[in-house]
Amino acid sequence: MQRILSEALASHAGRKVTIAGWIHRRRLLKSVAFLILRDRAGLAQVLVTDPAVRAQLELLGEETVVQITGLVVANAAAPGGAELTEPEITALSEPVTDLPVELHRPTLAATLPTLLDHAAVTLRHPSRTAVFALSAALVRGFRTTLDQAGYTEIFTPKIVGSATESGANVFELDYFGRKAYLAQSPQFYKQTMVGVFERVYEVGPAFRAEPSDTARHLAEFLSLDVELGFIEDQRDVMTVLREVLAGMLASAQGFGFDLPTVPAEIPILHFAEALKIAGADPAELDLAPADERALGEWALREHGSDFLFVEGYPTAKRAFYTHPEPGGSAYSRGFDLLFRGLELVSGAQRLHRHDDYVAAIAARGDAIEPYADFLEVFRRGMPPHGGFAIGLERFVARLVGASNIREVTLFPRDLHRVTP
Amino acid sequence: MQRILSEALASHAGRKVTIAGWIHRRRLLKSVAFLILRDRAGLAQVLVTDPAVRAQLELLGEETVVQITGLVVANAAAPGGAELTEPEITALSEPVTDLPVELHRPTLAATLPTLLDHAAVTLRHPSRTAVFALSAALVRGFRTTLDQAGYTEIFTPKIVGSATESGANVFELDYFGRKAYLAQSPQFYKQTMVGVFERVYEVGPAFRAEPSDTARHLAEFLSLDVELGFIEDQRDVMTVLREVLAGMLASAQGFGFDLPTVPAEIPILHFAEALKIAGADPAELDLAPADERALGEWALREHGSDFLFVEGYPTAKRAFYTHPEPGGSAYSRGFDLLFRGLELVSGAQRLHRHDDYVAAIAARGDAIEPYADFLEVFRRGMPPHGGFAIGLERFVARLVGASNIREVTLFPRDLHRVTP
Repeated sequence: MQRILSEALASHAGRKVTIAGWIHRRRLLKSVAFLILRDRAGLAQVLVTDPAVRAQLELLGEETVVQITGLVVANAAAPGGAELTEPEITALSEPVTDLPVELHRPTLAATLPTLLDHAAVTLRHPSRTAVFALSAALVRGFRTTLDQAGYTEIFTPKIVGSATESGANVFELDYFGRKAYLAQSPQFYKQTMVGVFERVYEVGPAFRAEPSDTARHLAEFLSLDVELGFIEDQRDVMTVLREVLAGMLASAQGFGFDLPTVPAEIPILHFAEALKIAGADPAELDLAPADERALGEWALREHGSDFLFVEGYPTAKRAFYTHPEPGGSAYSRGFDLLFRGLELVSGAQRLHRHDDYVAAIAARGDAIEPYADFLEVFRRGMPPHGGFAIGLERFVARLVGASNIREVTLFPRDLHRVTP
Repeated sequence: MQRILSEALASHAGRKVTIAGWIHRRRLLKSVAFLILRDRAGLAQVLVTDPAVRAQLELLGEETVVQITGLVVANAAAPGGAELTEPEITALSEPVTDLPVELHRPTLAATLPTLLDHAAVTLRHPSRTAVFALSAALVRGFRTTLDQAGYTEIFTPKIVGSATESGANVFELDYFGRKAYLAQSPQFYKQTMVGVFERVYEVGPAFRAEPSDTARHLAEFLSLDVELGFIEDQRDVMTVLREVLAGMLASAQGFGFDLPTVPAEIPILHFAEALKIAGADPAELDLAPADERALGEWALREHGSDFLFVEGYPTAKRAFYTHPEPGGSAYSRGFDLLFRGLELVSGAQRLHRHDDYVAAIAARGDAIEPYADFLEVFRRGMPPHGGFAIGLERFVARLVGASNIREVTLFPRDLHRVTP
């Protein structure tokens, strides 16, 4: 008999159906027993009165996979308003006996190590699946928004020949007897591809050999990258970022999270003005966490916005490929998007002229040679361009209020953890 | 002035507009000059009569990025039926002088090394952009089909702690002073996630330290992975694969490629029957390339189909996690999809009981210990499940008839190549 999902039970009242899933919970009362079945759509209640079936159920622990055929009866007290009665139960997996956690509790009582060591089980808790269903929906919204705006999705290599973007914190690889590295970002490739498609995006892993063991660093994370050509300045990039955020959040409704609203116009502050509002030393070259918090409060108070753009960060503190403000300014066309007082996304207009790259690298006292491949691209005709990158896990952690980024990562990788 | 795309030129006849893009070609005739501009939408013709503008154009080589403001005039001989006249040209990049290839020729005359060494330029040729626009559309079709069928997209780690799936051909990594590896596939993770979401897919890089330098191997490729639970047998997986292929090809129309039609029912042969039809030795444990070619011809002749399923490959030749046919058969529930006589996709029903895994690993004479993390998942209640993986580049190479997989990879990685 064709399986139906739990959510379809009520619409089959009076009929014999088959459902299948995991035994979420058993309640073995004196006169009757209840089995709560969990499938990808939700929960279904099964009423067991036959002593033989009850005896069978007693041997099938929570998380055993079963298929159950029975008669659907309306019952306002059951999840979805119907329950399955007169069940015949077939076990599809071996009986499960020793679970590391109780999945039927409303909240999952487990320490972070337990959560991660037993991910195969703990990820099944509805509070956990909701996080990853949300993540998938956010990525879908990201792509849909950009597809509709004429962007092309690209797939660029994660094994790279040189570690130019930031020499530190890069994973080294034995590549057929030579040294190679894991890409820290698709930065140079997405810029190159602006020369091909004008507007590109990539969703892929990025790797940082991050030696600090904090609640917000991962050695491997998912980077949502955007780059677009023919811009006037960073404002065009910020406009795209706003659209992308709105598209992501619109796509992510319905998973039980209280998501923020992206205003039609996200307020924008220049870095110098932001320092003033935060009451920071005007000579500062970056915003301290306390400054960001103060700015978050200001944006909410003055503009009713959870989001705030800060643009014009000092060139000295941004990546070498960041475009400066014109006229010899020490400020750049780099920006950050703050969400409730925390940095969420970084972006910028990039340099697009070969000579500007050579000058920028020389100004930092770096050698040109390691950048040769990359710089060659800018001798082939590149338009003014810019972009941004969203770290998915950090974004999700802030949206759902997770205190540790590992809680919103399926199988996190860090200084200490490379399994499961 | 707001830029318009080349495709919008004709609808602006009689008006002053701005276009922007790359100088695709210059034709400096005696009395006039023509500039063909390329943007992401196509080509636009610009008529230059002013001697000063012509002198300017003479200094701007092909691939220089320009912005051009002028008057649109209908001209049936121009691409799109209109051209830009009385142009004012502003260079947005430095002038480009020494191109490695001529991009304005209908076909790109370049050896494979030139194509790859100068990817930043050669990828701009319309014959090349078409391949990667097709690739993006195929992936979009893959995701859309699965999203609509209740699948959840997952993102699993590419750095893994053990090299269990296939000890050979794995890249080794210095992971904070320990050894780790690059994932050859998300196989174990997608199976684990069937326990969470029932139906999952992943689009991500996979890595093989493939020491053979052939036209169809890459060290890094994009793997489109699907896994689903609550199946009867491999036929349920094959049904999903057919739907996915149809969705991918439907999404990939319009890029100038003659794509095959996926029949409503792809013919299916059992492995034993396939050997007979191919005239091979009945004791063979796999299909030789000549057998696959013969089967491709058979499918076209007998069923008018470019596609053919072969199921029931001998268990001995498939991955240890492949489910055998019942009753002690030496055949498995593994299948291949052949496309015009070439293997395109592999899939199978997998084992889902812990004891079956232990037995299967022991039967191969392998130790259980390296698989411990993975096997633990099967003690936690796993439904019958199966899936498949499509290697994007190999799939695209066959669709477009590329003789070398590197031609359909943006920045290929192989035994000899790790740049650009």
